[in-house]
Amino acid sequence: MPMTAEEIDAFLAEPRLCHFATMDGNGHPRVRPLWFLWRDGEFWLTTRREARHTGRDLDSSPRVAVSVASEDRPYRAVIVHGRPEVMPPSEDLLLAISTRYGDAEGRGWAERASKEPDRVIMRLKPETLLSWDYSREGTDSPKGTVR
Amino acid sequence: MPMTAEEIDAFLAEPRLCHFATMDGNGHPRVRPLWFLWRDGEFWLTTRREARHTGRDLDSSPRVAVSVASEDRPYRAVIVHGRPEVMPPSEDLLLAISTRYGDAEGRGWAERASKEPDRVIMRLKPETLLSWDYSREGTDSPKGTVR
Repeated sequence: MPMTAEEIDAFLAEPRLCHFATMDGNGHPRVRPLWFLWRDGEFWLTTRREARHTGRDLDSSPRVAVSVASEDRPYRAVIVHGRPEVMPPSEDLLLAISTRYGDAEGRGWAERASKEPDRVIMRLKPETLLSWDYSREGTDSPKGTVR
Repeated sequence: MPMTAEEIDAFLAEPRLCHFATMDGNGHPRVRPLWFLWRDGEFWLTTRREARHTGRDLDSSPRVAVSVASEDRPYRAVIVHGRPEVMPPSEDLLLAISTRYGDAEGRGWAERASKEPDRVIMRLKPETLLSWDYSREGTDSPKGTVR
């Protein structure tokens, strides 16, 4: 059963990783764990445009898919598809993303990242958003995708 | 820094989810959380060939990418690429996968899943395997992909 908008906001406010899927230059899927920030119905992420496969893949294929899931029961998951808007990083946004995962570590990381010439922010407004909360139904839901 | 083979085995023995990336029929990336079993250097996974997007995607594009990451520090991640071999399910394999995630729940799930006519097992021998252990280096590794 899908989550409500409020439940999705609460789930994505937890400092989980997302798994960010792109298509590589050969037309094959690629996926990487990434930090993210969910704010006002959009994902904010960061990568490097040249030094990361994820960033380079956007050149050949702008569509991405993002998966966030709880590792423990009750299983919950959010999956979105869309085309991220790529923009230069602002210190505020880098900090907002990185400090979700620890204040001191995030600050140190953002300071270094802001000096990388190819560091970018990705803003991803979902074109589609799927969500599941397995606690609401039997474990063999026809909508189930965890297994 | 990569993990050793023993560290990879220990990491993948933990009951984490993987995030399984395919290419959909339109050539766009798709990603789903999935259960898995890592045994003797191969991933064993299960899906439904018809009732799941993941299973249907294999018709048009047999290559997949799989990402497993720790949510907590020290960050560790394993990513593999390959072409899964799709086969009919055996009860033993379904149980071996599902009971990793809880014995009673796994047994109940496997009993139901084995009755699904399109249930399949996917055996994925990695063509490439990448691993990272961020505790071995500064948080801004040139190999880093978590952020």
